[in-house]
Amino acid sequence: MNPMVTYTDIEQAHQLIRGHIHRTVVLTSQYFDNCTGAQLFFKCENFQKVGAFKFRGACNAILKLPRAKAARGVVTHSSGNHAQALALAAAIRGIEAHVVMPENAPAVKRRAVEDYGATVYPCKPTLAAREEGTARVMETTGAALIPPYNHPDIIAGQGTVALELLAQVEKLDAVVAPVGGGGLISGISIASKGLNPNIRVFAAEPTGADDTARSLAAQRLIPQTNPKTIADGLLTGLGEYTWPIIRDHVERVLTVTDEEIRAAMRLVWERMKILIEPSAAVAVATVLGDAFKSMPEIERVGIVLSGGNVDLDTMRFECASAGESQ
Amino acid sequence: MNPMVTYTDIEQAHQLIRGHIHRTVVLTSQYFDNCTGAQLFFKCENFQKVGAFKFRGACNAILKLPRAKAARGVVTHSSGNHAQALALAAAIRGIEAHVVMPENAPAVKRRAVEDYGATVYPCKPTLAAREEGTARVMETTGAALIPPYNHPDIIAGQGTVALELLAQVEKLDAVVAPVGGGGLISGISIASKGLNPNIRVFAAEPTGADDTARSLAAQRLIPQTNPKTIADGLLTGLGEYTWPIIRDHVERVLTVTDEEIRAAMRLVWERMKILIEPSAAVAVATVLGDAFKSMPEIERVGIVLSGGNVDLDTMRFECASAGESQ
Repeated sequence: MNPMVTYTDIEQAHQLIRGHIHRTVVLTSQYFDNCTGAQLFFKCENFQKVGAFKFRGACNAILKLPRAKAARGVVTHSSGNHAQALALAAAIRGIEAHVVMPENAPAVKRRAVEDYGATVYPCKPTLAAREEGTARVMETTGAALIPPYNHPDIIAGQGTVALELLAQVEKLDAVVAPVGGGGLISGISIASKGLNPNIRVFAAEPTGADDTARSLAAQRLIPQTNPKTIADGLLTGLGEYTWPIIRDHVERVLTVTDEEIRAAMRLVWERMKILIEPSAAVAVATVLGDAFKSMPEIERVGIVLSGGNVDLDTMRFECASAGESQ
Repeated sequence: MNPMVTYTDIEQAHQLIRGHIHRTVVLTSQYFDNCTGAQLFFKCENFQKVGAFKFRGACNAILKLPRAKAARGVVTHSSGNHAQALALAAAIRGIEAHVVMPENAPAVKRRAVEDYGATVYPCKPTLAAREEGTARVMETTGAALIPPYNHPDIIAGQGTVALELLAQVEKLDAVVAPVGGGGLISGISIASKGLNPNIRVFAAEPTGADDTARSLAAQRLIPQTNPKTIADGLLTGLGEYTWPIIRDHVERVLTVTDEEIRAAMRLVWERMKILIEPSAAVAVATVLGDAFKSMPEIERVGIVLSGGNVDLDTMRFECASAGESQ
């Protein structure tokens, strides 16, 4: 067990945030059950506020801040779902949010963050510039840094996904969730194993950003290098908090190609009539793959659809045949 | 009251089909509530089997057939949702289904119908050829014709949407549904008024196929001529069964342009993370329009999202600015 985040932390996170988050529905699909020979239960975090599970962690981290610290605001650097999550959670608590964002981020993402009342600080699109920009905001304002995944309160918040899922669906044999920085899968691991020590936890990862698969194989944290995948929410590497939890609790990392991700995403759109983003499709793609199907004694599977934020202007299904060949 | 379809018919239809259909969820959206100043309840028939409400009517019509008649199979001419609905309902009853389909229908639609076990008969893409093809199948096989909307059993089946909606949501002031041939809105009218005589029923129609608006204004059935709209499920005109029900029960027909339809569809995809087809977006677009907003004493509104069958290969959001300007 990793002492940094416990099952009790996740229960307390749920108490703290439950009045602010959606208890998202769990959907089933005869089509996908037929495809896989299992019973699949899709936890729809694409329906969560800001369109992704990220709101849970940001909400927990911000609501847990001591009053004096909270009064000075919060800051992060992100152009993705965490930025919107932070902005909304800060608005709920009534404090200022500062978001350092690469200047080449899509205008629609910047506007979404600003619509929640946060201040955006454009920076050069490098990690160094982002960290520098963040440090400057912290210096100037005294704002508290809320990182996107590598933080115990974030992990505990994301774990509430599994608390709900296991309450909504009885007797799950396994849970599958995507892994990028690892906040979601590590929170889910602790929550799931806390409720049922025999449940099996699988991480789903793109082959183009497979630091988790390589880390688990080597049994040591291997940094992410030159990631390249359509699943833009999973480009980050594991952190010092998330890695040991994953090492201790995740049975196996299943990897899928961008072609498999795109095909799975299309199938979910077409068959379930819900929008999921590529990062969420990674979990679906692994369950459709032969590696997962060949594992014995897995009948009832929870799959976390992590988010639904797709840029409809750029989304194209060039790989139509990949989707249709299924 | 129109004696052809009664509230009791709809209750009986529900008894007959409830074991075969999905009781679809009702979703809400803070975003759309804010847009309209009303409380909106979206009845998600895009999640229905075959992706549209059409399955309810086809299921009722086929299950109601006397055994000897059913044994000779069923036939229809359609390239749309009704064709798939008929094919699946026939498969459930274990009888043959014949579908006359224009030879230029997308291959994906033909394959979907064939996947349910129906036989497809390609014909020239004219109404005359479709009717001729259908007559030939009836002669050869003795199959019973199941029309897409202008039939009491179809209307009763579609009405079950409102039975469920009014059981799922208390104290609705109004119900809004799209109108093409009128099967859905007429069934909904009878079911809703049967449960609550004071409920207000509104039909939503594209300006490019507005025979219902013109018919209601003239108080006589005016045929559809040269319809042109992105809402390809609403190109048909009213029928002799559906028109009198609409005349007697629908308070008003609200019309919207293709640009409004496309913008509403995009907003639903982006904000609710669910796929709806253009015909379903027509109802959403009317509720977003000024005509609806200016009507007093409408607080709780049920909106029927009629279907979610979109061809992802051809779907493009050229009108991005229309969606974003909302």
